[in-house]
Amino acid sequence: MSHTIFPSIDPAAHLARVREHAPLIHNITNLVAMNTMANVLLAIGASPAMVHAREEAAEFTAIADALTVNIGTLSPHWVEAMIEAAEAARLMGKPWVLDPVAVGATAYRRETGARLLERLPTVIRGNASEIIALEARGAGGRGVDSNDPAEAAEQAAIRLARRIGCVVAVTGEVDLVTDGRRLAYVHGGHPLMPRVTTLGCSLTGVVAAFLVGAEDSFEATVAALACYATAGELAGESARGPGSFAVAFLDALYALDNETLRGRLRLELTDAT
Amino acid sequence: MSHTIFPSIDPAAHLARVREHAPLIHNITNLVAMNTMANVLLAIGASPAMVHAREEAAEFTAIADALTVNIGTLSPHWVEAMIEAAEAARLMGKPWVLDPVAVGATAYRRETGARLLERLPTVIRGNASEIIALEARGAGGRGVDSNDPAEAAEQAAIRLARRIGCVVAVTGEVDLVTDGRRLAYVHGGHPLMPRVTTLGCSLTGVVAAFLVGAEDSFEATVAALACYATAGELAGESARGPGSFAVAFLDALYALDNETLRGRLRLELTDAT
Amino acid sequence: MSHTIFPSIDPAAHLARVREHAPLIHNITNLVAMNTMANVLLAIGASPAMVHAREEAAEFTAIADALTVNIGTLSPHWVEAMIEAAEAARLMGKPWVLDPVAVGATAYRRETGARLLERLPTVIRGNASEIIALEARGAGGRGVDSNDPAEAAEQAAIRLARRIGCVVAVTGEVDLVTDGRRLAYVHGGHPLMPRVTTLGCSLTGVVAAFLVGAEDSFEATVAALACYATAGELAGESARGPGSFAVAFLDALYALDNETLRGRLRLELTDAT
Repeated sequence: MSHTIFPSIDPAAHLARVREHAPLIHNITNLVAMNTMANVLLAIGASPAMVHAREEAAEFTAIADALTVNIGTLSPHWVEAMIEAAEAARLMGKPWVLDPVAVGATAYRRETGARLLERLPTVIRGNASEIIALEARGAGGRGVDSNDPAEAAEQAAIRLARRIGCVVAVTGEVDLVTDGRRLAYVHGGHPLMPRVTTLGCSLTGVVAAFLVGAEDSFEATVAALACYATAGELAGESARGPGSFAVAFLDALYALDNETLRGRLRLELTDAT
Repeated sequence: MSHTIFPSIDPAAHLARVREHAPLIHNITNLVAMNTMANVLLAIGASPAMVHAREEAAEFTAIADALTVNIGTLSPHWVEAMIEAAEAARLMGKPWVLDPVAVGATAYRRETGARLLERLPTVIRGNASEIIALEARGAGGRGVDSNDPAEAAEQAAIRLARRIGCVVAVTGEVDLVTDGRRLAYVHGGHPLMPRVTTLGCSLTGVVAAFLVGAEDSFEATVAALACYATAGELAGESARGPGSFAVAFLDALYALDNETLRGRLRLELTDAT
Repeated sequence: MSHTIFPSIDPAAHLARVREHAPLIHNITNLVAMNTMANVLLAIGASPAMVHAREEAAEFTAIADALTVNIGTLSPHWVEAMIEAAEAARLMGKPWVLDPVAVGATAYRRETGARLLERLPTVIRGNASEIIALEARGAGGRGVDSNDPAEAAEQAAIRLARRIGCVVAVTGEVDLVTDGRRLAYVHGGHPLMPRVTTLGCSLTGVVAAFLVGAEDSFEATVAALACYATAGELAGESARGPGSFAVAFLDALYALDNETLRGRLRLELTDAT
């Protein structure tokens, strides 16, 4: 097992690519996240668009550079649009990211999650419980359990990445990224991050933005998470609570520079076993 | 008539319960409120979830600790989900809170309000006009009238509380809570609060969080309103306008401590007559 | 061609009218914009309401003082409500503002934009690409092109204003307003404005608020844009990034006073040729 503390992944180079090309990210996301996600994508230098009608979703995916699908707030019309957009992204070879919010909570979510998984996302980003629930479905369907240890999520993430042939990112106190072969831990962030709604959902958009034009989806995902964690760390230094944290976080994303990123980066890279 | 200036209700004890158990609050709320409400619930220490599809709403209510239903932005699919979730909460004996936004404005709202009322909410929270319109429907259907005096709302609140067997909270410059037997006035807040959208809607979620595990719904509702009013008062001291007020308010909710709460508490308790 | 640097339009007088009457603005807007738009309308002194169900949309338009329709996030049920509400506004002679978000991007948007145009909006507000796409549809259907020069938008705006008999506002680094006869340029704003999501959508609501009770829709629109640009300029002076800009912008809208407005006003008025 190789274990690299100072890996070759350079988040600053990935961020520079996003800022230079301002990729158009098509998001079918939940109703709570929309505004925050749009602001996060604008702050990082991408161009967000929210388009969910079945009448136009797949057509819009063809215009966009990448797609995200988040199952946080479902309804039948939206689910069909999600499937069609994801299918369009898959057929056109565009990167798309699945965010399986609370996928284990209801039958409707488990079913929708499974249907989306069949469209082979480029990256899946969720918390430990969601990744475990999504992975376990084929083998019996475990529900959400917020007490699932990170270790359990690690093995589920590796199995899911191998089965789908994708990258899986598990975010939490320490983030974990795997493509089934490599494994990265991303340190940083701040305890106030989970106290601000939809910062995780918004990260899914940032991952999509970093995938556009990237040669290696695993490295791009790690870079996106590293930028996010660094901005969180910076925001936490001035925040007096979740309200001022949210404001400082957007300012920090917008202001991220190479020096800060490289100075604060705490990545670990290893093999997935 | 008894009249107590320093009543035995201790909002700090109720807040401590919320923070300890982080109750899961299922919200079917309006599209404007979702993000703010989620942030308010996270700031106060609860765990918010927005689930509105008929395919899963009642199933999710069974997982959650309490439910809120807000009729601010309606559509047919959502209305049916609201009814089914409220019915599920009633049958399972879970607390649920009705927020009858602009219930007197259109026939669709009056009808939806009446259907929800039949599912016997634990608490109804609205402004004076909404409570008057909701109460009057059975007797003839008065519309919204923002000039309705607080006194008129007080009598409507008492009648509504007795008819439904619930707690009614009327929020405004001074808040009023009644269970048809007791009556409380909660002072505090700040003139900028109505200049920030959906702070009232978000309070409905806070009330639901305070109901979980409470022995007395009236006391829990008063406690929720007292915490909210105190946070508003604190936020107003540093705000330069509605933008900075909204930020400071989330910070204040998050930071509320027993000493501040007890020092600033201005409740009046009396009998409902 | 007359060219007036210090025109007779007094934005402060229009703002005073909004603050005095707090007009009720009915918005059928996109899901990303709702919260921000409501906060912007409250900050400027208007009263926002978001009502989109076909079951009540036209009925609500009859209660409201003005209507806005924004096609940013479409779905079939909403589109029919938009048409019915716009038709109601037209028949009742109430001002209504069309915001044709990304109208050239998909067939569904082009079709919806054209249907709404038939209901004769009082004002159309969009960016250069949107105005060009909306105007060109009758003549062949050009898509969105964010590289369209302002000059092209100027001619499209004038043609559209004359064809529909409305006011057209094209917002960008310098805003442009025309009724097909007069032409105004509004300077101000800040480079961070396009980095905060839905500030353009929210401006559409402010235009609607300024139209209520105005004798001249062109002047009212110019006044709305001038107030917005001034608040943006002020907010930019203290912002550290898009997060703090959004907060400072709401504070600035709320605090706008006559002296500031008149001191910073940079309007140019000329004939449309």
